[in-house]
Amino acid sequence: MPTNRQIVLDNRPEAEATASNFKLVSADTPALADGQVLVRHHYLSLDPYMRGRMNDSKSYAAPQPLGEVMIGGTVGEVAESRHPKFKVGDPVVGMGGWQEYSVVDGNAPGLLRKVDTTHVPLSYYLGAVGMPGVTAWYGLTQIINPQAGETVVVSAATGAVGSAYAALAKARGCRVVGIAGGPEKCRYAVEELHFDACIDYREHGDVKAMAKALKEACPKGIDGYFENVGGYILDAALLRTNAFARVAVCGMIAGYDGAPLPLQNPALILINRLKIEGFIVTEHLDVWPQALQELGTLVAQGQLKPRETIAQGIEAAPEAFLGLLKGKNFGKQLVKLI
Amino acid sequence: MPTNRQIVLDNRPEAEATASNFKLVSADTPALADGQVLVRHHYLSLDPYMRGRMNDSKSYAAPQPLGEVMIGGTVGEVAESRHPKFKVGDPVVGMGGWQEYSVVDGNAPGLLRKVDTTHVPLSYYLGAVGMPGVTAWYGLTQIINPQAGETVVVSAATGAVGSAYAALAKARGCRVVGIAGGPEKCRYAVEELHFDACIDYREHGDVKAMAKALKEACPKGIDGYFENVGGYILDAALLRTNAFARVAVCGMIAGYDGAPLPLQNPALILINRLKIEGFIVTEHLDVWPQALQELGTLVAQGQLKPRETIAQGIEAAPEAFLGLLKGKNFGKQLVKLI
Repeated sequence: MPTNRQIVLDNRPEAEATASNFKLVSADTPALADGQVLVRHHYLSLDPYMRGRMNDSKSYAAPQPLGEVMIGGTVGEVAESRHPKFKVGDPVVGMGGWQEYSVVDGNAPGLLRKVDTTHVPLSYYLGAVGMPGVTAWYGLTQIINPQAGETVVVSAATGAVGSAYAALAKARGCRVVGIAGGPEKCRYAVEELHFDACIDYREHGDVKAMAKALKEACPKGIDGYFENVGGYILDAALLRTNAFARVAVCGMIAGYDGAPLPLQNPALILINRLKIEGFIVTEHLDVWPQALQELGTLVAQGQLKPRETIAQGIEAAPEAFLGLLKGKNFGKQLVKLI
Repeated sequence: MPTNRQIVLDNRPEAEATASNFKLVSADTPALADGQVLVRHHYLSLDPYMRGRMNDSKSYAAPQPLGEVMIGGTVGEVAESRHPKFKVGDPVVGMGGWQEYSVVDGNAPGLLRKVDTTHVPLSYYLGAVGMPGVTAWYGLTQIINPQAGETVVVSAATGAVGSAYAALAKARGCRVVGIAGGPEKCRYAVEELHFDACIDYREHGDVKAMAKALKEACPKGIDGYFENVGGYILDAALLRTNAFARVAVCGMIAGYDGAPLPLQNPALILINRLKIEGFIVTEHLDVWPQALQELGTLVAQGQLKPRETIAQGIEAAPEAFLGLLKGKNFGKQLVKLI
């Protein structure tokens, strides 16, 4: 019976999350009951939504309980099975959490899904062909719904969501403009991810400078904006929107003190007849198969080549997660567990 | 040839609009060319959107040119006609502006429309069965699209838009809650306009007090909000929204100094998966016939009894308009011109 190292949430952040909020513990993996599957995790996904779960405040999801294994997406292989649908060695994706092994009920719909690793590397099912990819797909196709020739923008351009967004938008004939932190990321966005332009927010640190940079990068204005960030970048993007532009809201950071950052000029919603819509991709499971199909095809065709930042070992997960919150990752942040 | 008294925009407001921005002038009505119609205006409509036109800033509509007759909706009767479709005495609605007579091209589509005054008083075509009514209809049915049993809220509840909104929402089986200024308006909203509850914003002058009042008036939360105002009332309404609530943005005041009022907590867009949409009703002329049909029926059946505040004479228009901007009107603000 293998030992299972786990990261649990030990206490909640006062303001900024720190490594001391987490604790590494060890447990034995339990014996399987009938219908259960033991999964050995190869990769753990780290995602910004996890920060919200660490708080005890009202949000769209229940808080992460204290003392329990942190929630998180995982890919791996079946290590032991008492379910006829799964056999040892099957590559699978699930929500195994921040640990090396998980025991899953093979009958529960949607908890564990077998995947095809012929054309798509296993780790991509946590990124481009997983929740982040579907997030980009949903915001772009279901909310922004761009026409060919329109200009669409995304913040956090080189992340897992941003890179999928660029590939999906280019496939629809859009001009796609990214916003990222630092010249290296911006160069990568244009050279490898097919962005038409990428703005370095570190070079444009207030609403006026960002609005000017957006005006140059989007000479015909902005028709669609995918919001991963909030704050002054959102203010600047709204200033450059065309009439009837659509804004998909997927992420919204708070100010340094945890208080919400205001939207400076909501009158633009009326002036430009904007549609602004927030969404949580896990509430739209009906469109996942269609989205995953398109994303898998883009990967297989070489049009979507996501970058990954990989930390080694479960014990590295907290620091990698804190780095992700500060934008230190470059592409999809993963933890390799084997 | 009758003399035509007119109000022109003489100069633009520095901050608050004042009577000195306007000038009363007189002109002769010109002789009609073939295809033209002379309309004698009975009523002029005063509406908040006119304030935006007085500025020279970017908005969804061109600014009102200086020295020209102020734009505005009018109802009246045909005084002289050189168009076969219109005969003297026909009741008509159009955009005649702040003047006693207008000359209209009878061939231009949509400029002049004959109306039926059998069941609907002529002045109502400027309010409940006119642009304000269609505005309420569009926001409620095309953006909020409420289910029976949902709670929908509107600010400026006793105005022309608000009173139509209440009748339309009650017809759809909603709980409808208004926000208005002063106990007299709130009592009227509940007793005459069929609101289930009405909150006096003068008694709840900040976001915390308004959010508390909304919580009491909307025990099941807010599913739809029609925004006529902006500022702290919008902030409070968003705090009380349910998941997947819809916000129709029709009006948005600025701060006292003309600077935009921020939206304090845009993260609620994501947390509650809100859809916020701005609209201008004149951009959706395709739905007007359907909307006017429903509004006319509600009036004829006595379910929509709009109140009017009527100023007498074209010379009274500027003061009546400034009063409207300060909420001094009670119901639809009109100027009687005969």
